[in-house]
Amino acid sequence: MSNSFGSVFRITTFGESHGVGIGVIIDGCPAGVALETTEIQQALDRRRPGQSDLTTPRKEADQVEVLSGLFGGFTTGTPIGLLIRNQDQASHDYSHIEHAYRPSHADYTYDQKYGRRDYRGGGRSSARETAARVAAGAVAAAFLRTVGISTLSYVSQVGAVAVPVGYEQLDLSLIDTNPVRCPHPETAERMAALIRQTRDRHDTVGGIVTGVALGVPAGLGEPVFDKLHAELGKAMLSINAVKGFEYGSGFAGTLLFGSEHNDAFYTDEAGTVRTRTNHSGGIQGGISNGQDIYFRVAFKPVATILQPQATINDQGEEITLAGKGRHDPCVLPRAVPIVDAMTSLVLADMVLRARANRA
Amino acid sequence: MSNSFGSVFRITTFGESHGVGIGVIIDGCPAGVALETTEIQQALDRRRPGQSDLTTPRKEADQVEVLSGLFGGFTTGTPIGLLIRNQDQASHDYSHIEHAYRPSHADYTYDQKYGRRDYRGGGRSSARETAARVAAGAVAAAFLRTVGISTLSYVSQVGAVAVPVGYEQLDLSLIDTNPVRCPHPETAERMAALIRQTRDRHDTVGGIVTGVALGVPAGLGEPVFDKLHAELGKAMLSINAVKGFEYGSGFAGTLLFGSEHNDAFYTDEAGTVRTRTNHSGGIQGGISNGQDIYFRVAFKPVATILQPQATINDQGEEITLAGKGRHDPCVLPRAVPIVDAMTSLVLADMVLRARANRA
Amino acid sequence: MSNSFGSVFRITTFGESHGVGIGVIIDGCPAGVALETTEIQQALDRRRPGQSDLTTPRKEADQVEVLSGLFGGFTTGTPIGLLIRNQDQASHDYSHIEHAYRPSHADYTYDQKYGRRDYRGGGRSSARETAARVAAGAVAAAFLRTVGISTLSYVSQVGAVAVPVGYEQLDLSLIDTNPVRCPHPETAERMAALIRQTRDRHDTVGGIVTGVALGVPAGLGEPVFDKLHAELGKAMLSINAVKGFEYGSGFAGTLLFGSEHNDAFYTDEAGTVRTRTNHSGGIQGGISNGQDIYFRVAFKPVATILQPQATINDQGEEITLAGKGRHDPCVLPRAVPIVDAMTSLVLADMVLRARANRA
Amino acid sequence: MSNSFGSVFRITTFGESHGVGIGVIIDGCPAGVALETTEIQQALDRRRPGQSDLTTPRKEADQVEVLSGLFGGFTTGTPIGLLIRNQDQASHDYSHIEHAYRPSHADYTYDQKYGRRDYRGGGRSSARETAARVAAGAVAAAFLRTVGISTLSYVSQVGAVAVPVGYEQLDLSLIDTNPVRCPHPETAERMAALIRQTRDRHDTVGGIVTGVALGVPAGLGEPVFDKLHAELGKAMLSINAVKGFEYGSGFAGTLLFGSEHNDAFYTDEAGTVRTRTNHSGGIQGGISNGQDIYFRVAFKPVATILQPQATINDQGEEITLAGKGRHDPCVLPRAVPIVDAMTSLVLADMVLRARANRA
Repeated sequence: MSNSFGSVFRITTFGESHGVGIGVIIDGCPAGVALETTEIQQALDRRRPGQSDLTTPRKEADQVEVLSGLFGGFTTGTPIGLLIRNQDQASHDYSHIEHAYRPSHADYTYDQKYGRRDYRGGGRSSARETAARVAAGAVAAAFLRTVGISTLSYVSQVGAVAVPVGYEQLDLSLIDTNPVRCPHPETAERMAALIRQTRDRHDTVGGIVTGVALGVPAGLGEPVFDKLHAELGKAMLSINAVKGFEYGSGFAGTLLFGSEHNDAFYTDEAGTVRTRTNHSGGIQGGISNGQDIYFRVAFKPVATILQPQATINDQGEEITLAGKGRHDPCVLPRAVPIVDAMTSLVLADMVLRARANRA
Repeated sequence: MSNSFGSVFRITTFGESHGVGIGVIIDGCPAGVALETTEIQQALDRRRPGQSDLTTPRKEADQVEVLSGLFGGFTTGTPIGLLIRNQDQASHDYSHIEHAYRPSHADYTYDQKYGRRDYRGGGRSSARETAARVAAGAVAAAFLRTVGISTLSYVSQVGAVAVPVGYEQLDLSLIDTNPVRCPHPETAERMAALIRQTRDRHDTVGGIVTGVALGVPAGLGEPVFDKLHAELGKAMLSINAVKGFEYGSGFAGTLLFGSEHNDAFYTDEAGTVRTRTNHSGGIQGGISNGQDIYFRVAFKPVATILQPQATINDQGEEITLAGKGRHDPCVLPRAVPIVDAMTSLVLADMVLRARANRA
Repeated sequence: MSNSFGSVFRITTFGESHGVGIGVIIDGCPAGVALETTEIQQALDRRRPGQSDLTTPRKEADQVEVLSGLFGGFTTGTPIGLLIRNQDQASHDYSHIEHAYRPSHADYTYDQKYGRRDYRGGGRSSARETAARVAAGAVAAAFLRTVGISTLSYVSQVGAVAVPVGYEQLDLSLIDTNPVRCPHPETAERMAALIRQTRDRHDTVGGIVTGVALGVPAGLGEPVFDKLHAELGKAMLSINAVKGFEYGSGFAGTLLFGSEHNDAFYTDEAGTVRTRTNHSGGIQGGISNGQDIYFRVAFKPVATILQPQATINDQGEEITLAGKGRHDPCVLPRAVPIVDAMTSLVLADMVLRARANRA
Repeated sequence: MSNSFGSVFRITTFGESHGVGIGVIIDGCPAGVALETTEIQQALDRRRPGQSDLTTPRKEADQVEVLSGLFGGFTTGTPIGLLIRNQDQASHDYSHIEHAYRPSHADYTYDQKYGRRDYRGGGRSSARETAARVAAGAVAAAFLRTVGISTLSYVSQVGAVAVPVGYEQLDLSLIDTNPVRCPHPETAERMAALIRQTRDRHDTVGGIVTGVALGVPAGLGEPVFDKLHAELGKAMLSINAVKGFEYGSGFAGTLLFGSEHNDAFYTDEAGTVRTRTNHSGGIQGGISNGQDIYFRVAFKPVATILQPQATINDQGEEITLAGKGRHDPCVLPRAVPIVDAMTSLVLADMVLRARANRA
């Protein structure tokens, strides 16, 4: 009941970190969307481990196989099945965590919930599950392209190193020009340096991803409970390691007075309704207003650190656990395609849902 | 498709600000919960307008009528219908916004989405809808009481005036001892002063509500997409005027290294598993771990200000709109019971969903 | 989780037979549907008790109150709340069934399921719940009118008295010209006679309602699981006392060979695709094909008979229960508007769902 | 939005007849169910083509691969992914139906709905999709075994050849002792003869499957809309070629008077509540009452016949289509495991849903 996301454009993911593979079924993608497997593969390649020295050296080709739903280069309206087999799963030993509870991981809570767990590499709780989201997000993005919507995101902060300006002052075409995926080159270098220092100390560091959606028409988002930003928030908070979400003015907006915060409407020369400021983040009353949508997502530092830590085993006995395995010192660079995917999935769903709004 | 919340303990709200009334149907509340109408009424009384000089003078008795689902003082397992009739709806004139789009309100987006709207007092987009949530939340709280879970929240920041300590250092029994609903008396006074100054300037101010859930057993929350904090986040972001959500260490947690952020497990003298810190906010891998759950919710300043503002009408023509009506200079004090209600609704749903976890 | 029906055009009903009232929230009706309260009332008047000597003498005005969702004569896209207060609920004594289990009623199963029940008049299990469906169905029908779809149904069999011809050979404008709601006048008289004889023997009789949907365009119905006839079947089977559902050739179709059963396609003079026969009942592969949709619904005889019956009480002791109260000797005439309503609700949902089928 | 079934125990199927394969994701199966892949395979072997001379000679090994959700011989509570690759898909030519609409098939309606279709072997509309249901049903059956529920079904009618007695007078252990899957040996032989005659005439024949569920405790089924028999009915009607569903007394029950139809309660010697007759089919008010559940499902004759038929192409032109391919002259024998699977899926869902019924 919990591995599906979306209401009309709906995905269901499956798979464990070190099982047969990871996959997703997309149910509700409209027929007639032109889609090449290469698009899905390119999205996966952005999330794949081992891309640079800033990420985990785990080697996974993450080759996608399309199981169903495509015919002659187009979606057919039937469910699209995508499977990514695990390759590197057999080569490592996870017996040291079979009975141990890693701090700030999901080992303890899965055991409490289900009475058992696939402990290999975190099993279902591993961020490897997000590969399925990225694959599905590529399909959503292909659909959104047919209605002129695009999504992107970038690393805006690593530890205390932050991009000093807002998204609208950045050249977002630079996102993929460095391994950090930060479109502010000078900051990107400082972020990379911090990540390397942290890695060399066998530690991890968190940060913030800023997401943007462009070309979103007014009218998307379903009040009352499925407000556009509420769905975006849930989508982002469902990503591993996310601790917070804010859109538009966010937490900083609490420091403004109403007279400062309100976005005045005006009509531009082309006759388009706009707002002079965009503290609303493109969403008012839970519905898009045609302005840019932007938001920020907080990621905690990765829980797996290559240092000894005090913890307990499943008998409640205190033990010391030494970190093993290959892990990211900072998930932010690889989180960017995941945030993109979740944004696309939310918007694809909302585009389809909005079609039922008027008689 | 958008006025329901929850999966098993599921509510559907209806009603407009100045229509017949506001209400909710609760479907999925288990049979056998002892429930008095007075409990629901007390929750509504905390949200009711006109409680103090810090809130809107709009007068609404907010008397709840139970339409169904209770028999002999207990829930019966059938849908619980609750209706709160509007009283003060006829006495005011809203014709000035029939064709005008108030800045940072939902007038424009509703028109774009639906092609029409009930403009009286914001219609469905009014925060008056949250009365229905508060009523439903009281029912959820009654159910949660049967399993030992309680929820509470308080105002932790108004504008830049913030409580200087965390929830665990406060006496939370003080929440309702002042009209701000801040359990730190000294800060509460400064907050009240700021709200009054703001009101007198015909302006509005935002702030932050901190929410806490106590007594939550390990094992609640449904990975992958319906993580406990993802559902809490969606719930909070669906409340009018909310701009951000964070739990546990939240955005500040991005500044810590993994070695600082990880919560070490230990077993206490009673044999209970605990963590030495709680940056996780009581949730790991989307599942409760038995520690306190806590989170923060950012509210923007109310959009309605009693000052002239530049905007446009539904013909796209620029106009000046003078604020009218009776409005809160700060929603925070009245937001507290709404946050409580949404927390209870999420947890009640998760308690019931967890019953399907094991054979 | 069980009192809602529909996916996009979604209703949630509430209320008990002898509580405050019965009602429904319609969530997902598109904005811009012209709708008068009188339309809803007229539909309710067709289902109301006490219409003729063939039905229960229980007196219920069944006046509908619109709580929300309409403004200026049109739907607004927000939830439509409808409430029908019970009037006659206080005047009768149901203490004789507080602890008794009426044969073939839901008293025993509700107690087993929920551990308690509102026993007055059957509580939630009473067919009075269907008043809410009829009200909602009128709204669905108003929406369907905007796309040229209409639904109707009639009594085609009472006991062994059956209309001798198919729906396509009947003048369906005659349905409401007699109290049985059978458009074959001669058969209607025989049905009425059988119902009166049965009533006078303090017994009850069952029968069959035939439903028809006209003007349904090709393409409605969502394979694989939500096939149009599967949703119609569920809708009908959810009506009190229904024991069976068949569409098109139905059970009789099992006696034909494939060469007899197949519906040959052809193109008519106007260039429209048609089939020479319609054993498919207008649905192929779960999707409407543009031909008439027709189906049959079997209703058992009403379980309440005004005769002494052997049964048990809630202590398992054998008792004799004498029938009391005011009940229909045959539900078929009043079932017609309920079948109409459920058909409309299914089709309204499918019209909206189909909007997501193509990019 | 249409390829999922179930609310808590929820499956999503994917795949086309002649694509890569067919599969299913099971989300919501509780953790801790002992499950061997061989159980799933055995269920698939009952549905597999080519079992006897009564079925299609299409050769499919239907080997299942478990992609996720099992660990150490038990379910883990995470989604169970099952994949059955198509083997025989490449060897046949379907170009003759690329532009033709086969009578009483879904070719025309899929084209009308989606604007395109995978025409190879019927694509998604092929009954091959039911392999995924059978695989999932085996998992549901394994879960049901933990609570003492079992399901079975058999062929009770082929054409006009019917088993002369009810299920309770049959030795149901005989179901799999003949290729028809009819536990009445004499009738089974006559059925087999009819199927062979029909096949030799290049025609097809329909029939009826009777389903039974044993060991179902009182209390399953969710009123109002998700009545147990309504969900069973939807489940059965969603199977390819099904035209009707009835439970308990069904259509024949319309011929009885209430005094004949009512099931009198009594307490047996062991103190168990029973009914003297079971016209209710084990379900009252949509909730199981502890008696046997039984129902009947009508299957039309297979639409593909190896005879020339008049039809049209996708330009609306009249053509003659000669049947090709390998098809069943009668689907009934292979429908039995499908009916079993759908029954198990409905009951597994209802067992889990019922856990939320009481505080």
